[in-house]
Amino acid sequence: MKRPGVWKMLVAAMCMALLSSLQAQDLPGQVSIVLLGATGDLARKYLWQGLFHLYLEEVGKGHHFRFHGTALTSTEQGQEVIAKILESLSCPGDMALGHCAELKAQFQQLSEYRQLKTPEDYLALSKDIEAQVKHEGLQETGRIFYLSVPPFAYVDIARNINSSCRPGPSAWLRVVLEKPFGHDLHSAQQLATELGRFFREEEMYRVDHYLGKQVVAQILPFRDQNRAALDGLWSRHHVERVEIIMKETLDAEGRTSFYEEYGVIRDVLQNHLTEVLTLVAMELPVNISSPEAVLQHKLQAFQVLRGLQRHSAVLGQYQAYSGQVRRELQKPDSFHSLTPTFAGILVHIDNLRWEGVPFILMSGKALDERVSYVRILFKNQAFCVQSEKHWVAAQSRCLPRQIIFYIGHGKLGSPAVLVSRNLFRPALPSASWKEVEGRPGLHLFGLPLSDYYAYSPVREQDAYSLLISHIFHCRKDSFVTTENLLASWVFWTPLLDSLAHEVPRFYPGGAENGQLLDFEFSGGHLSFSQPLPEQLVPGPDSAPLPSDFQVLRAKYRESPLISAWPEELIARLAGDIEAAAVRAVQRFGEFHLALSGGSSPVALFQQLATGHYSFPWARTHLWLVDERCVPLWDPESNFQGLQTHLLQHVRVPHYNVHPMPVHQRQRLCAEEDQGAQAYAEEISALVTNGSFDLVLLGMGTDGHTASLFPQSPAGLDGEQLVVLTTSPSSPHRRMSLSLPLINRARKVAVLVMGRMKREIAMLVSRVGHEPRKWPISGVLPDSGQLVWYMDYDAFLG
Amino acid sequence: MKRPGVWKMLVAAMCMALLSSLQAQDLPGQVSIVLLGATGDLARKYLWQGLFHLYLEEVGKGHHFRFHGTALTSTEQGQEVIAKILESLSCPGDMALGHCAELKAQFQQLSEYRQLKTPEDYLALSKDIEAQVKHEGLQETGRIFYLSVPPFAYVDIARNINSSCRPGPSAWLRVVLEKPFGHDLHSAQQLATELGRFFREEEMYRVDHYLGKQVVAQILPFRDQNRAALDGLWSRHHVERVEIIMKETLDAEGRTSFYEEYGVIRDVLQNHLTEVLTLVAMELPVNISSPEAVLQHKLQAFQVLRGLQRHSAVLGQYQAYSGQVRRELQKPDSFHSLTPTFAGILVHIDNLRWEGVPFILMSGKALDERVSYVRILFKNQAFCVQSEKHWVAAQSRCLPRQIIFYIGHGKLGSPAVLVSRNLFRPALPSASWKEVEGRPGLHLFGLPLSDYYAYSPVREQDAYSLLISHIFHCRKDSFVTTENLLASWVFWTPLLDSLAHEVPRFYPGGAENGQLLDFEFSGGHLSFSQPLPEQLVPGPDSAPLPSDFQVLRAKYRESPLISAWPEELIARLAGDIEAAAVRAVQRFGEFHLALSGGSSPVALFQQLATGHYSFPWARTHLWLVDERCVPLWDPESNFQGLQTHLLQHVRVPHYNVHPMPVHQRQRLCAEEDQGAQAYAEEISALVTNGSFDLVLLGMGTDGHTASLFPQSPAGLDGEQLVVLTTSPSSPHRRMSLSLPLINRARKVAVLVMGRMKREIAMLVSRVGHEPRKWPISGVLPDSGQLVWYMDYDAFLG
Repeated sequence: MKRPGVWKMLVAAMCMALLSSLQAQDLPGQVSIVLLGATGDLARKYLWQGLFHLYLEEVGKGHHFRFHGTALTSTEQGQEVIAKILESLSCPGDMALGHCAELKAQFQQLSEYRQLKTPEDYLALSKDIEAQVKHEGLQETGRIFYLSVPPFAYVDIARNINSSCRPGPSAWLRVVLEKPFGHDLHSAQQLATELGRFFREEEMYRVDHYLGKQVVAQILPFRDQNRAALDGLWSRHHVERVEIIMKETLDAEGRTSFYEEYGVIRDVLQNHLTEVLTLVAMELPVNISSPEAVLQHKLQAFQVLRGLQRHSAVLGQYQAYSGQVRRELQKPDSFHSLTPTFAGILVHIDNLRWEGVPFILMSGKALDERVSYVRILFKNQAFCVQSEKHWVAAQSRCLPRQIIFYIGHGKLGSPAVLVSRNLFRPALPSASWKEVEGRPGLHLFGLPLSDYYAYSPVREQDAYSLLISHIFHCRKDSFVTTENLLASWVFWTPLLDSLAHEVPRFYPGGAENGQLLDFEFSGGHLSFSQPLPEQLVPGPDSAPLPSDFQVLRAKYRESPLISAWPEELIARLAGDIEAAAVRAVQRFGEFHLALSGGSSPVALFQQLATGHYSFPWARTHLWLVDERCVPLWDPESNFQGLQTHLLQHVRVPHYNVHPMPVHQRQRLCAEEDQGAQAYAEEISALVTNGSFDLVLLGMGTDGHTASLFPQSPAGLDGEQLVVLTTSPSSPHRRMSLSLPLINRARKVAVLVMGRMKREIAMLVSRVGHEPRKWPISGVLPDSGQLVWYMDYDAFLG
Repeated sequence: MKRPGVWKMLVAAMCMALLSSLQAQDLPGQVSIVLLGATGDLARKYLWQGLFHLYLEEVGKGHHFRFHGTALTSTEQGQEVIAKILESLSCPGDMALGHCAELKAQFQQLSEYRQLKTPEDYLALSKDIEAQVKHEGLQETGRIFYLSVPPFAYVDIARNINSSCRPGPSAWLRVVLEKPFGHDLHSAQQLATELGRFFREEEMYRVDHYLGKQVVAQILPFRDQNRAALDGLWSRHHVERVEIIMKETLDAEGRTSFYEEYGVIRDVLQNHLTEVLTLVAMELPVNISSPEAVLQHKLQAFQVLRGLQRHSAVLGQYQAYSGQVRRELQKPDSFHSLTPTFAGILVHIDNLRWEGVPFILMSGKALDERVSYVRILFKNQAFCVQSEKHWVAAQSRCLPRQIIFYIGHGKLGSPAVLVSRNLFRPALPSASWKEVEGRPGLHLFGLPLSDYYAYSPVREQDAYSLLISHIFHCRKDSFVTTENLLASWVFWTPLLDSLAHEVPRFYPGGAENGQLLDFEFSGGHLSFSQPLPEQLVPGPDSAPLPSDFQVLRAKYRESPLISAWPEELIARLAGDIEAAAVRAVQRFGEFHLALSGGSSPVALFQQLATGHYSFPWARTHLWLVDERCVPLWDPESNFQGLQTHLLQHVRVPHYNVHPMPVHQRQRLCAEEDQGAQAYAEEISALVTNGSFDLVLLGMGTDGHTASLFPQSPAGLDGEQLVVLTTSPSSPHRRMSLSLPLINRARKVAVLVMGRMKREIAMLVSRVGHEPRKWPISGVLPDSGQLVWYMDYDAFLG
């Protein structure tokens, strides 16, 4: 990820210069606003009203305005539509009717429709603007192009604006773009690159209309104005969880052609909810009125998001969805969509402020109510001595304490900011926020409304009106910069990829969903609370569930084989290791365990760290089977994986942990540092006869094990206990226990998981003792026991 | 603490042998039960009834019984009292009246009163028992002496029993003792030693009547019978908190002569609530019907309790208390008691199962209700998608999930075990536990009773009846062994000492307490939720409290001096270290901290480990200032102290921890292993310019610092960064940072604590730069800062 660029400074500087130029110049300035797609739905519903609102706000402040509605429609037809739209515009409720009519007439006069299709049309528009500016004795301040058009049209339009419709060098250009901004990281990057050929970063305003919602726009000012109270509360020490929620009652009917391609994560979570997440989680800039500071802190928030995994999500789809898709997109009866219409996501943030605090993002269609909110629930760290009947809402620290940014709809019906009275009385700007009137009987989030300090906007304002005003005022922080957009896709794309073939849980829709979609988290994983009921609509050839199978016991290469689905396999292996540890400690007072790196053991480490309370860690020595020649803190280091997933969670004494000395005197695996010899000596000094109690190995697709590779003979035989070897894949240099040392172990467990291992597992099952071709075939303890642990994917394919 | 001894095996073996001997022998056996203090309150209310109950249970099972009520009262008077007591005994409700009368008459016949005062009385009793056994053609099985007498009488009685009233070698002796068992560790040890002169461990049954309460006695069986459901729940991953509560409405009036000496912690927490705590927290033995396994696991639970500190407690005293004491104990009007009648305690358990889970112990007199319970509240790790009105109590994972051992009283009015219906349906023995009938409108712990699976005993049984039966059946696990008693005092005594002069918060009593006693925890510290209101009763003019003093800032040897009471001083130093760490990480990306060993830093380590969540441990390197030439795992090793008190609690990456290499190739500080040079190289490689960000030093009574001693010149000057030195005290060989290296640090903090340091502190304040006489006087950073941290004891004496 690039560091926040210099352009932000430029934007700020330019904005200031251009706005103030107004006063500095001799001639009054004109701003032209070109609305592309001016007859479309969005324009009709929000954008014209937003432009009118801007006009009302700015008229008389020195700028002249011209509004050009454009579309592909013929001039005549378009003019007719626009005339109707303009007629329906409304003034704020507190404006005198006569004054409103006057300003509306002015606005209608300043607005025109024109067809904008060919490069010539753009050129003509540009010329007309110039002529008109000159004619009226003005000078041009800037042009806003608002692209309310489908994304496939962006590039053509951008090219035309750039080549034929840029204002002169003393005026600015702003181009406003509506989502979607790509479908994943790759397509978003592509689109950004294409647009970048025509516009500078500071010229582009990507709209996420959530950022224009009054309550969302208030999150940072709220955090800023209540710093004193929030400083002590806004962290993992006090926050129990954060919920960022958008529930819809509508379904996707009539929009399935769009929806089928996007689904709920791309439609709502990647953009709206993620924007809100960053506003809640980001470090608060000293000066929140600096757009560049806000954007920079927001970008930093992305950088500390922990990567999502398949188990970070639960997905659902309302039952009628596939039928709707079949009807609307003319699919055959056999068609079943996998597109999720519901998603719950667990996000963790890896910084000191938020470590361990679950951020729950959830959105879905066809749910029981329409409501959007952010809820920050604080921990209950109090004990109330009196019985509950004596508790007083405004004082008792045992009643829930929460802050809710109520974005809209729901039982309250209007946007609001709610703060539990047992927290603090919040400061909000009194000119624009007023206390909500009492509503006896209304409960929100488990408490009566009267238990909250509740504020709502004095005047409700549409998101687009707010954003159009922010475009005019250069408030770039209300928009999605290229950097932030790509950061969001970097975060979401791996999850989307891993979920691509996931079968969502089907739900009936509305209140009937019951507890079907409730989900819970444990150890970073999300899962539905209720076991899967009988599928109401059959999923596409759904794979058999792990619980359908018993753990299989058999022989492999004449040694015991244990095979199961991954979770059972890991649980079994962890149990066996614990049993070996307990036995060794009872007999010898200590347990020497040598562990391999890689991804399969990660699940094992996590299992050992969280599920095995009686493991005698204080008497366990941990050794490495092999190591990459990188510093121990390198993410590629096997030791780093061991530390992250195991050591941080259990209490192994420092001196019982034995990383391989691959990094000495700031050199990596230098022969003359004799690291391999030093490790061998350490083993000889501490491990009786060099016999580890248990060695955990893996098996590579080329038949390698530990870091003993087919291509290099080192370590396959001979006297050396620890050797330096060469891997065919990077990093090439490795340190490894030798085969003879491994074979001295009391027990060797080989863990093999995943479909990728199927071929080699088949092959190795048939070969004899040929360590030079397949080092794994040389694993056969002299007097110890060998056990193979293979999941069904590897074993049965 | 000793390891659980062999005697437990013996007890078990003996018990089994003796009980089964019954069948094996030819003659039927007789058990004599001697109740000392037979006319007292406890005997009157519970013990005679318990004996009768035992008789009802055991009659006809082969044993013959004789009951001897004894006291100091004359025979005639005593007989009269006993006759009345016996007349009032009752049978279980389900026994036929006629049968009851018959058995009661038998029991009355088997019971007699006798005066027991002099050694001759004991001898006479013994002879009478023997004669009577012989006369009836029985053989003696055993004797139970139940001492329902004040503890000052124990030793005399014990001596008399032992010398004059022991049964013959083929019969057993059991002596039952009532609390208090000492006032602190010292007195408990003394009493245990005295009793140990007369009885073997297996002969003593110390009663904690809480262990006889039906619900308390059910905790382990409940955990055992519901293993499948609880295995996944009974740990820090799922438990949010545990509350162990005993609330009383009564006050101490009429009992102040006892209460004034004991207070609530000794009266309730050290014994009853601690016993319950261990039953909840202990690892569950495989076989819970083995008393020795239960006792051993219980003892292990004590060993993982984190030490209590002054801030682990909040104390209160009801306002009328001091007046009651003045009246009852004839104290002057100026007398104010500091004895707490209310205490809230936060206990943490340092094992993998419970780490981080708050265990809240609370008890008090003059509260708003009488109730005792253990509440295990589970974490809410679910998100419920539907709005609350659709939640179903038995299913929704978002409603509170808890298990409550309702010991007694309160709104429910009877003992019960409650399990939230959204958890699981518990298994309880259906012969003795029945489902509680519905009580519409009754809410417990925030939920209607109907939201719980609720079970109460089929037949309520008094604690003493249950315990008397357990004495007879050798159920030693229902009693307090010497080991467990002392372990409990080891746990509580330091807290009691540190609270000795603490002024409790005064509370009016009853419902009027309002939120006054509510407390909360943060970072391991407890505090009242509400700031102190105006004191309603003036506190005694006791010793000035630490908080009455400001932290003192002054100069010492021309460097800044910070002086305070120990806790404030440690808190201040920890805060300063954290600030230095944050600053260093911001500027350089890492923080190099060199720490000394010894006892003063232990409190600092604990403070850093528990109170400083924002400490950038992941970027901190820990170095040792000095080390003793012992293996790192030796208890004398400085590193071992660092590991136990700090490293185990924070997440410092393995490779950022730098123990001194005093132990290489199984040799200690061998010159030829060049450990000092290796450490110097490590420092040079990682610490820029060898300038530690902070070096923490101490000062010895001889003026030494680090391991630089007046007697040996090594390390006082010269080029060497790390040196081997010789200490006047054992272990003599040391490794130490040199004075020149220490003086390169950015900041040096010298921590000096305790009265012992007063003289040297005075002396050193006056001497110049004379490191050869007083190495500490050579500490003066070249360009860094030196700060002295001294507690008042060291500084003011």
